[in-house]
Amino acid sequence: MRLSRFHLHTTKETPADAELVSHRLMLRAGMIRKLAAGLYTWSPLGLRVLRKVEAVVRQEMDRAGAIELQLPTIQPQDLWEETGRWEKFGAQLLKIRDRKEAGYCYSPTAEEAITDFARQELSSYKQLPVNFYQVQTKFRDEIRPRFGVMRAREFLMKDAYSFHASDADLAREYENMKAAYTRVFTRLGLQFRAVQADSGAIGGDASQEFHVLAESGEDALAFSTGSDYAANVEAAQAADPAPRPAASEALRKVETPVQKTCEDVAALLGIALQRTVKSVAVMGADGFVLALVRGDHMVNEIKLGKVQGLADYRPATEAEIAEHLGSEPGFLGPVVPRKAIRVVADREVAAMADFVVGANEAGFHIAGVNWGRDLPEADVVADIRNVMAGDRAADGGEIKLARGIEVGHVFQLGRKYSEAMKFTVLDENGKAAVPAMGCYGIGVSRIVAAAIEQNHDEAGIVWPVPMAPWTVAVCVINPKKDASVDAAAEALLSELIDAGLDAVLDDRGLRPGAMFADIELIGIPHRVVVSERGLAAGTFEYRSRSASEAESLDRARLMDKLRGN
Amino acid sequence: MRLSRFHLHTTKETPADAELVSHRLMLRAGMIRKLAAGLYTWSPLGLRVLRKVEAVVRQEMDRAGAIELQLPTIQPQDLWEETGRWEKFGAQLLKIRDRKEAGYCYSPTAEEAITDFARQELSSYKQLPVNFYQVQTKFRDEIRPRFGVMRAREFLMKDAYSFHASDADLAREYENMKAAYTRVFTRLGLQFRAVQADSGAIGGDASQEFHVLAESGEDALAFSTGSDYAANVEAAQAADPAPRPAASEALRKVETPVQKTCEDVAALLGIALQRTVKSVAVMGADGFVLALVRGDHMVNEIKLGKVQGLADYRPATEAEIAEHLGSEPGFLGPVVPRKAIRVVADREVAAMADFVVGANEAGFHIAGVNWGRDLPEADVVADIRNVMAGDRAADGGEIKLARGIEVGHVFQLGRKYSEAMKFTVLDENGKAAVPAMGCYGIGVSRIVAAAIEQNHDEAGIVWPVPMAPWTVAVCVINPKKDASVDAAAEALLSELIDAGLDAVLDDRGLRPGAMFADIELIGIPHRVVVSERGLAAGTFEYRSRSASEAESLDRARLMDKLRGN
Repeated sequence: MRLSRFHLHTTKETPADAELVSHRLMLRAGMIRKLAAGLYTWSPLGLRVLRKVEAVVRQEMDRAGAIELQLPTIQPQDLWEETGRWEKFGAQLLKIRDRKEAGYCYSPTAEEAITDFARQELSSYKQLPVNFYQVQTKFRDEIRPRFGVMRAREFLMKDAYSFHASDADLAREYENMKAAYTRVFTRLGLQFRAVQADSGAIGGDASQEFHVLAESGEDALAFSTGSDYAANVEAAQAADPAPRPAASEALRKVETPVQKTCEDVAALLGIALQRTVKSVAVMGADGFVLALVRGDHMVNEIKLGKVQGLADYRPATEAEIAEHLGSEPGFLGPVVPRKAIRVVADREVAAMADFVVGANEAGFHIAGVNWGRDLPEADVVADIRNVMAGDRAADGGEIKLARGIEVGHVFQLGRKYSEAMKFTVLDENGKAAVPAMGCYGIGVSRIVAAAIEQNHDEAGIVWPVPMAPWTVAVCVINPKKDASVDAAAEALLSELIDAGLDAVLDDRGLRPGAMFADIELIGIPHRVVVSERGLAAGTFEYRSRSASEAESLDRARLMDKLRGN
Repeated sequence: MRLSRFHLHTTKETPADAELVSHRLMLRAGMIRKLAAGLYTWSPLGLRVLRKVEAVVRQEMDRAGAIELQLPTIQPQDLWEETGRWEKFGAQLLKIRDRKEAGYCYSPTAEEAITDFARQELSSYKQLPVNFYQVQTKFRDEIRPRFGVMRAREFLMKDAYSFHASDADLAREYENMKAAYTRVFTRLGLQFRAVQADSGAIGGDASQEFHVLAESGEDALAFSTGSDYAANVEAAQAADPAPRPAASEALRKVETPVQKTCEDVAALLGIALQRTVKSVAVMGADGFVLALVRGDHMVNEIKLGKVQGLADYRPATEAEIAEHLGSEPGFLGPVVPRKAIRVVADREVAAMADFVVGANEAGFHIAGVNWGRDLPEADVVADIRNVMAGDRAADGGEIKLARGIEVGHVFQLGRKYSEAMKFTVLDENGKAAVPAMGCYGIGVSRIVAAAIEQNHDEAGIVWPVPMAPWTVAVCVINPKKDASVDAAAEALLSELIDAGLDAVLDDRGLRPGAMFADIELIGIPHRVVVSERGLAAGTFEYRSRSASEAESLDRARLMDKLRGN
């Protein structure tokens, strides 16, 4: 490939709306161009990277025994109604009416379509297990599409769906897919972690996410120093708290004229923030609920939502708070007659003694509060907080936090979809049985952006070799001045390609500075310069993208170096 | 690949709504499954074929110097309004409102999106010429989707768009693309013809279609025996007619009590049908028009629509006919005072003498009619008829007709889109110039169905080797009974794969009859049977899909035979 016959179009400007470095660099390198909000064209350069990721994903899915097929992107409303997701999926589902006013959607995921295919195709346990996958364009109508292809509306996804005669077989395939995903991200040269996750809207029994580690990641991840334990903060758990100490202080009302936050109250009273309790008022299915977490902790909305009656909870309004607690926000607390309210305490709070809460009276808190003595035990004790760095983990280690970009997700769906869609096969005894399902997604286009977040420097992208648009760039100085230089570069290019390297010739005739800046910006791992002077000396100038200095190498040493990588 | 680990699901039933043999066979072979009207899932088997076609298309586009990119499938309304196609494209354009009520469509073609990309990327004539292509899912909301993937709503298309500094350079690339398309269809092993075409809704200056020849084809194609001339009947032209003979008959009114068609009138009068003239009443932009073609000819709607004022013509109503001609349909003719009506005569009609037309009076025709003498010359003389088999071609040969399935189309668009979208580059003199454009489409998924229409027999599909899901099927008889037979088959499979053949092992353990029926139905070009008896004799049973008999071959002869193909 000669760059003079390719379309490379780098730019210097950084668009104002590009917040993430990957978005800026993809635009500057000319990998993507915006067509409309959340809709991007993959330029020839960008598509080369996307296809390399796609190829690795496909190879590892094939190796793992999954079978590729292709579902339509446009799917009928009636299928989505069978599972109730036509309504439940929410506004991200792009709904469409065709010329006959029939309802369709642009597939954001394909559990319904694949289960419909499976119930047409599979009738016997003998056809199980089977794992179907596709690499297909998806659409999610994000309310605020941003970050380029990281959170685009139209994106490329690999989605796989497996069907099983037993839960044990589903668990086996789940591990098989986890191993395949580990191979995918390892082969792509990315630093990643598999973490326990909440199953979210897809539903199901068990799930894990694969995250590319990057400081800019949207997700907070928790790891333990004591074992392999890793989980999305959404789902991460700390160790059980130590047993509750005995009460040692008397209950007392304290003046906190303008102190509404735990931080301010603790500072005023000269006590540790860990001695205070935060009261969060919400409305659940059964009415008003006060959720309690320690002053230095944050409520985890997903965990709180799993408490009985709080599946669809919302914050209480000031009027509801006044009605139930007779107070304004900022001074709330659980020391009230336990009539129309429920108290849900985090495990840590339930294990506290001598703590401080709001007095349900503007300008006052209560200190020295103790369970049992000053108020009844909580109605529910549960883990409803986010873990924090430094927490003790269940394995005895310490919790550390990092940030990640979710690029893969594996789920044990169980029978949620197969049951809703009445999909059965005949089992060994000739009886109808509902197959168990797993589903396994990889955000193919998002991987490209995530890799850049993890691998870049001031000059631009630093691709891992397996994702680079080309592995080696052969840069020709003054190709038009001296035909022999161009010929030597062409000969080197052929040799590199024969050696199995994905090499490109930069024969555009740019000044060296501009040419090198382009090659660095688009992140080519290896740069070789062919010049009149070098040819006279029998050497090539070689520089690795990650090295700070170039070196002069003769042809044999150059080839050894490039082949070794 | 072992079929026991693949998902093959053939069926015996022929669905009632499957009219075309390719639709029936694709369903029976389990290549596709219907998700909804005009929406098909490509099963693992079908996808193998689709990917083979896609790979050949991609290789030949790359070889021809086109550069691959990927546009979004969802495209914004405002772009389509720049060219006026948001309205003009009609109901086939699937229009969508997103969650913010902004207008989008699912791309049925991508002239707007690529021109928008080009105007962001290209600013100088030095960046021209360039030819961008993609292989991407498209959607056309057909009013009556049918024939399976032949006329599906969602389909896979390769679309390419080129940009040029001059018309001459566009013409050069047009020829380059025609050559690439010829290589594609030749490599795929299809019988095809390139024919001149009407440019239709895409617009532009010159266009050619590529048709796979098949009796079931929707398009009628005309060829000349005298040269390479070939055209879609929509666009095909016959030679100019011979000069008009002198008048020899007197004008006379003849009674035709119930004879309303030219055929009936000719029979009644005992004259050749070629002596009669058919009068077709239509309403154009300037009012009532009588279009005349010879009694044995058919009006070509596309050609008639190209006559000045008839771009959007429609048939005249009976009331309009009565108003202008004072007659009921069936007895119409051009011998009337030439006031509020225009007469458009086909070239052949303008060259006739002594002909028969309707008298504009129920029950009567007029014979011996002659131009100039009995009525003024026609207002317009043009080619407005379909060619017929046996017509003389312009090259002196004879016109023959055949039927075809359109699988490719190349257009010289000129500046229609670049002008409408205000796309300019700086030319050699530093002045803004509007680039010329070409566009080049291949219906990738349609090729699969077209190939089957052309290549099938009673037993099923007969794939050309380059499109077959596998080239060789190694069928094992009783694989579970004798492990050595399975091992021998596995060894043969490895040898075939090492020889570069795309081979598959049928180890499903079916009875030979059922297994062979499947392998024939799915159209595998070469079948090799491995059996206990054959192994004992040192032979394999070989049968070509197109042969009627099997033959026994030893390993060396078998490999020679398979390698030779």
